[in-house]
Amino acid sequence: MSVTVDIWTDINCPFCYLGKKRFLDALSEFPGRDDVAVVHRSFELDPTLDPGTSGSVEDHLATKYGISLDQARANEARVGAQAAELGLPYQTSGRDFGSSFDMHRLLHHALAVGKQEDLLDALYAANFGETEPLFGDRARLVAVAVGAGLDELQVCAVLNDPEAYADDVRQDEQEAAALGVTGVPFFVIDGKYAVSGAQPTEVFERALTMAAADRPVVVGASADAECGPDGCAVPQS
Amino acid sequence: MSVTVDIWTDINCPFCYLGKKRFLDALSEFPGRDDVAVVHRSFELDPTLDPGTSGSVEDHLATKYGISLDQARANEARVGAQAAELGLPYQTSGRDFGSSFDMHRLLHHALAVGKQEDLLDALYAANFGETEPLFGDRARLVAVAVGAGLDELQVCAVLNDPEAYADDVRQDEQEAAALGVTGVPFFVIDGKYAVSGAQPTEVFERALTMAAADRPVVVGASADAECGPDGCAVPQS
Repeated sequence: MSVTVDIWTDINCPFCYLGKKRFLDALSEFPGRDDVAVVHRSFELDPTLDPGTSGSVEDHLATKYGISLDQARANEARVGAQAAELGLPYQTSGRDFGSSFDMHRLLHHALAVGKQEDLLDALYAANFGETEPLFGDRARLVAVAVGAGLDELQVCAVLNDPEAYADDVRQDEQEAAALGVTGVPFFVIDGKYAVSGAQPTEVFERALTMAAADRPVVVGASADAECGPDGCAVPQS
Repeated sequence: MSVTVDIWTDINCPFCYLGKKRFLDALSEFPGRDDVAVVHRSFELDPTLDPGTSGSVEDHLATKYGISLDQARANEARVGAQAAELGLPYQTSGRDFGSSFDMHRLLHHALAVGKQEDLLDALYAANFGETEPLFGDRARLVAVAVGAGLDELQVCAVLNDPEAYADDVRQDEQEAAALGVTGVPFFVIDGKYAVSGAQPTEVFERALTMAAADRPVVVGASADAECGPDGCAVPQS
């Protein structure tokens, strides 16, 4: 049997970058990995931003949390340390934050031509691993997409038409809202099991194993009110 | 949308009797209760017993747990107190324990004629609410089934043919084994959420609500490694 994994993600989201690595670590050890199909779904941390807008990550963090720039930098350093533990490059200063709508449209285009994973990895690498701004630099976005194997003319055609794949992005976001997703990364395995956040690799392993076995998820604690072959959970006195 | 609930149960199992009440309490308050279909599935606590065999519950408990008869009686009294809290009659002495295979065959017959719930309630009431033995008294079993609205000739025909509905019972038990069920009651809601044991009513409410919303179950703890509209779970310093 095959297993489908839908991952809601945003390019602005450092824990999506870390979570993808942890998920892939779990997947690479999963016995049924060849039957697992992964689709990356769109989620914008700030859907109110107009496409093209961007600004410094540190400024954004300071404003969002009401903290100083130094504190914002310290926060970034902490995330960078977590990335380093996973062997992921992470620039803790100089990155920008901005509208990811166009990137999500490109990811849907990439899905259509079989290069979604390549593009997502390239976007993560460009955004988190290098200091040049990605959100505020259209030419760089094109170069990154081409570097991921996409056709330059097609990439420009998608970026030049603001409605290209826009409904796909919105549909992903509506589906996330219907599922009650409030943060990313959010992994849904066979529509049945969800993992919220960049959980440890073991959590992904467990979710994959349960989905493959098609077992229902047990709700609530168990055991002291059931009857089994050894009796009925009657306390011995 | 409709919700299906499969409940694996054994007539010998006091927590199945209690759990059914708690589940029904939750169901009666559930807004979508009219769209919930319940099917009772077969589970034998001791499938090695031959049909017709039975013995005293107290003796059975004492042997199973290696405790004295007085301790076995005290255990039964504790379960009886829990039953009383739910308003369920429970005889704490004089009951018998035995093979439930024929009762499960009758429950499948009752399902076929639309009287499964009536028969299960009648079997529970006769086993737990009255002191006369049920497992060791074929004539009484027939009387209970007829009292639940089943046709006496059909009941006798089922009981006289040891293979009538026997494969249905075995199929339920095989399905339970495939799901990893080791104790009953075991509730499976839409094949997706499971509740193991006679859990508090709130647990059943939660499981019904999640199933009706068709939400994936979140595996693992959440929150400190995800990005939402308010930021990326970055601790403030």
